[in-house]
Amino acid sequence: MTKSSSYPITPRSRVKRFHERGDHERAAVHAVLDASMLAHVAYVMDGQPYCTPTTHWRVGDWLYWHGSSASRMLKQQKAGVPVCVTVTLLDGLVLARSGFNHSVQYRSAMCFGTARIIDGAAEKDAALRAVVDRFFPDRTAALRPILPQEAKATMVVGMQIEEASAKIGAEGVCDEDDDYALPIWAGVIPLTTVLGAAEPCPRLLPGVERPEGLAAYREGRRLDEVLLDMQREFEGKAG
Amino acid sequence: MTKSSSYPITPRSRVKRFHERGDHERAAVHAVLDASMLAHVAYVMDGQPYCTPTTHWRVGDWLYWHGSSASRMLKQQKAGVPVCVTVTLLDGLVLARSGFNHSVQYRSAMCFGTARIIDGAAEKDAALRAVVDRFFPDRTAALRPILPQEAKATMVVGMQIEEASAKIGAEGVCDEDDDYALPIWAGVIPLTTVLGAAEPCPRLLPGVERPEGLAAYREGRRLDEVLLDMQREFEGKAG
Repeated sequence: MTKSSSYPITPRSRVKRFHERGDHERAAVHAVLDASMLAHVAYVMDGQPYCTPTTHWRVGDWLYWHGSSASRMLKQQKAGVPVCVTVTLLDGLVLARSGFNHSVQYRSAMCFGTARIIDGAAEKDAALRAVVDRFFPDRTAALRPILPQEAKATMVVGMQIEEASAKIGAEGVCDEDDDYALPIWAGVIPLTTVLGAAEPCPRLLPGVERPEGLAAYREGRRLDEVLLDMQREFEGKAG
Repeated sequence: MTKSSSYPITPRSRVKRFHERGDHERAAVHAVLDASMLAHVAYVMDGQPYCTPTTHWRVGDWLYWHGSSASRMLKQQKAGVPVCVTVTLLDGLVLARSGFNHSVQYRSAMCFGTARIIDGAAEKDAALRAVVDRFFPDRTAALRPILPQEAKATMVVGMQIEEASAKIGAEGVCDEDDDYALPIWAGVIPLTTVLGAAEPCPRLLPGVERPEGLAAYREGRRLDEVLLDMQREFEGKAG
């Protein structure tokens, strides 16, 4: 079956507000997911919603993250639990001439699926490598191998993205026609998340240099750009 | 009744994993909420969890945000709906000598409560002013006043924080004892979200300067620090 370039649009994933900004294209959704390493996972336990932050990574149409507060629930429900995983980047503050037109610039992706514990040995091993190598190319090959008890102590959760939508708010100041005549300052304050200078572990052995695979993590670079680059590199190596 | 310095600890809000990092103190929770302007709201509709990003602001023990996808549900359920509002800041990447000990530095606050539409005229007016003035001191006084149809078109959602917990992960590299002897690079890569240079609206009237109230939003400053400063100023003026 040929994969559609778009995730299905259903009542659940249809973008309700500002729908001209909504985009169900896989490429648009992935571009948001891959630019961040922070996701929020919503799930329901006994009717109560929970929203848990986690580090996520994507392999094709699958999202993965480390075991969360949902662990207990997931252990009981082997068939999986419905979740909504959302990734958002804040790109700027928009100050308009009226309170009403103040807004923010952002990128957001909302993904729906069924979260399951990844406990097959091969699949789990691949996931535990991917969570390192997706961010830091070739790093697992240079690390001390994962011990069986470490793999056992780590819970990996995964879900196939069944439905998803991306929303991008990139507009600048957009005031009411009459308001442009007002002597009020308006403008955009951009926001970026950047890398600081690496702080080597104080117990580093003498002569140990930062590996080539971390070259992209240079001081001052934007995290979103580094993460997008690293994802492309990761996918290139996965073939 | 004297307000406790701590939010109640219940099965819902108890920090389950790494509980030594958990903190139910109001000050700890507020310090995370106030350092960010991006929250994720989890709610349940027909058994399906949703996770919606939004800009939030705090006034005392109340969290507010703009109408979200939950709007339709909130309109139907005047008594309110249970939500979990989570705010997370990513502060650094921790690269260890084993995959198992890789981690991130972060601050997170998870708040539980019942979201309601804020539709009382006075309360709504105060909220619509607060969402601007909490971020940009004294700005509403300089703006064109909110029109009745604008107030009507804006949905403000609010909830009293009933239970909450904060989690801080600020540790550096923490490897297994034996692993420190390995010739592997380990360290922390700090992450900060910073302000760029303001981009004035191209239609700004001649001679309109950036107002004093925006002085804190200087290029290069950390957003979390600016937001914490602005919250203190906002609370100072509220008395």
